[in-house]
Amino acid sequence: MERQQKEWNQLKHEPSKRTDVYNLIRSVLEKDLKVPADLKKPLINLGLGEPSKANGFELPEVINEAMIESIKGETANGYTMSSGTLDARKAIVKKFSNPEFPFTVDDVVLSFGCSGAIYNAVSALCEEGDNILVPRPGFPLCYPISQNLNINLKYYDLLPEQGWEIDLNSLKSQIDENTKAILVNNPSNPCGSCFTKAHSLEILAVANEYKVPIISDEVYYGLAYGEGSEFNSFGNLTKDVPIICCSSISKIYCLPGWRLGWSIVYNNHGYFDHVIQNLHKHAMIQLHPNSLVQQALPRILGEVGEDHFTTLKNKLKEAAECAFNRLSQIRGLQPIKPSAAMYMMIKISLDEFCDIEDDVDFCKKMLHEESILAFPAQCFFAKDAFRIVICQSTKNIEEFADRLQDFCQAHYKRTAPLVQDQ
Amino acid sequence: MERQQKEWNQLKHEPSKRTDVYNLIRSVLEKDLKVPADLKKPLINLGLGEPSKANGFELPEVINEAMIESIKGETANGYTMSSGTLDARKAIVKKFSNPEFPFTVDDVVLSFGCSGAIYNAVSALCEEGDNILVPRPGFPLCYPISQNLNINLKYYDLLPEQGWEIDLNSLKSQIDENTKAILVNNPSNPCGSCFTKAHSLEILAVANEYKVPIISDEVYYGLAYGEGSEFNSFGNLTKDVPIICCSSISKIYCLPGWRLGWSIVYNNHGYFDHVIQNLHKHAMIQLHPNSLVQQALPRILGEVGEDHFTTLKNKLKEAAECAFNRLSQIRGLQPIKPSAAMYMMIKISLDEFCDIEDDVDFCKKMLHEESILAFPAQCFFAKDAFRIVICQSTKNIEEFADRLQDFCQAHYKRTAPLVQDQ
Repeated sequence: MERQQKEWNQLKHEPSKRTDVYNLIRSVLEKDLKVPADLKKPLINLGLGEPSKANGFELPEVINEAMIESIKGETANGYTMSSGTLDARKAIVKKFSNPEFPFTVDDVVLSFGCSGAIYNAVSALCEEGDNILVPRPGFPLCYPISQNLNINLKYYDLLPEQGWEIDLNSLKSQIDENTKAILVNNPSNPCGSCFTKAHSLEILAVANEYKVPIISDEVYYGLAYGEGSEFNSFGNLTKDVPIICCSSISKIYCLPGWRLGWSIVYNNHGYFDHVIQNLHKHAMIQLHPNSLVQQALPRILGEVGEDHFTTLKNKLKEAAECAFNRLSQIRGLQPIKPSAAMYMMIKISLDEFCDIEDDVDFCKKMLHEESILAFPAQCFFAKDAFRIVICQSTKNIEEFADRLQDFCQAHYKRTAPLVQDQ
Repeated sequence: MERQQKEWNQLKHEPSKRTDVYNLIRSVLEKDLKVPADLKKPLINLGLGEPSKANGFELPEVINEAMIESIKGETANGYTMSSGTLDARKAIVKKFSNPEFPFTVDDVVLSFGCSGAIYNAVSALCEEGDNILVPRPGFPLCYPISQNLNINLKYYDLLPEQGWEIDLNSLKSQIDENTKAILVNNPSNPCGSCFTKAHSLEILAVANEYKVPIISDEVYYGLAYGEGSEFNSFGNLTKDVPIICCSSISKIYCLPGWRLGWSIVYNNHGYFDHVIQNLHKHAMIQLHPNSLVQQALPRILGEVGEDHFTTLKNKLKEAAECAFNRLSQIRGLQPIKPSAAMYMMIKISLDEFCDIEDDVDFCKKMLHEESILAFPAQCFFAKDAFRIVICQSTKNIEEFADRLQDFCQAHYKRTAPLVQDQ
């Protein structure tokens, strides 16, 4: 063999292409938005969607109780079924199954967070070369997934002026013979929007017309707080279109980092009979999520009351209104009022500014000059905007708005130059 | 589009080939070894390697303390770096890095258990069509991994009569231009063996000669209890051969199910420079393992004392001796004395039995007649043997041996027929 003739230092292992993946957020964090060690002011981090205690989001007591019970009981220190314990999956059925749109434990597969659930669903539905349709702006996870699985992403547009509804013509125009699923994310990250029931039905009508199933990323399940906005799971809106709903405890129970998610397969017309089998088989490779969290899940889903969600939504609503009102008054920025999830998008009128190249440049300068971390729209397949995370105290948001105002002030085009050229 | 002309019930989604994976253990559990509801006796489960409380393996107190501290502190309810927190990775460096064979936090990537670590390593090293060499008998995980990644497995033999050392000629004969790694599993599941230092160096010499790196599955790190047997991590035996060592807290800390594992890259000669990058990138898809366990990891690795490992090894040794002594006395069975890990292989002399077709048939009948669950060698790419898990009380093992003796008695060939044919 040729290798035998060489020394190790003449060789270098070229890793697989499938692991050479690119995460838009992580990549920007490591380059343009690398937080400098010598920040001028305390960092205001509006980057990651983490509804944790550090951000003023308290956990319902029962959650820690249930986890401590799991730990002390020491009956959860063992392997479970790869797809998750029967009890954990039963708890998901009990919590989320609607009598009109029922599913069973066999239709549920646990995963490593909602990211894992989406990865598993896409992996099961697509061969190499197939494509899925994804929203623009949209959560960037599908990008490294597509690279890993060697599939194509085709983008459909969301319309900011219509509350981030899907441009249905754009959606239809993207469907081709190799389209294996439409990925929807409702409520939306990064848009902070939630589809009306009527619009969800329009989307389903397209899926039904073209016979393309839906992967619904519902990690912000239920988190619609806007006036008159109402969340409907795609699984509960159709008896025709087959749906895989992905979610987790990370956002709605304020447990990012615990990494327990799930896929629920709404196997309408038996279309997903074989897919369900493969989701279970596929789980046998990396096995199940943490067994303690699995054991705690029935109590988490069963005992956390409506008051938790009401408080959570009220906090988000308060933060959203505060952010929207303040930012609406800043020239050159157009915040788009959020009504759901934990985010707000803010359009940047680049022509109001004298030295801002694009959204990445805006965020980079904002970080260096005002110690604010937020992600540019380019992280979400879009441009000329940036996203802020609103699971923050209003105090933080006020401080953010003050600094942002100063920042813009320093970068506006000046109508008359301050100093005449010599 | 053609699909538009059809109804959903005329369509069926054919899932991807990559998710159509086959786990030998799970598959046999669902078919031949499906535990009947009406077992004749209480089940003796010698199937899964679970050193948990239910099997008489107590946790060091500090482990639960550390986890409860994580939970109550509520500072771990957030996303961490995809590759794991710096503190968790530092703890791994502190515990496992040898001054002579050092590695840094950048060489460590956390994963979903050791299964996840092995999956990640193979995924990073191999393109489709490449191959890795795996032991026979060996842990069956690499089979679904190979199907998922569309790579080939080539088997090298372990020699039971030489304490399950690798048949080095068999190993060499399997290496070809597309061989991207030799996977070793030391201590071994299912063999319950541990390589001597001299033999490990022989294996490294082959890897060095052919310039093939090693993936070392060391999930039973340190668990060598046999007379004179001694564990050496492959990472600590070479400055030439590049190694990826995979391990987890599941076995050595008796925490199966918690799903925190890691890869340590021993980047000798910089051969893995690009591989390390991709391991970190690849982690950005499904992100990090449970954040609470990550936060507890420094205390688990730092404060669990030698007494835990001594107790664990003594228990395994006692169980191994008990099982070996009892089973040695059963005609038709040749137990191979284990010296490490949590398993023992038992050869079956099929010609001693009148109605046992093969090892699967043996295990199936043993389950149905004596309510003993153990896995046939076919689950481990081998044959004519079965594996028992020895992390059991000696009481259980005695009971198992009694039943096994009865079972064999009922199936021996009879030298003279009891009833003459008419």
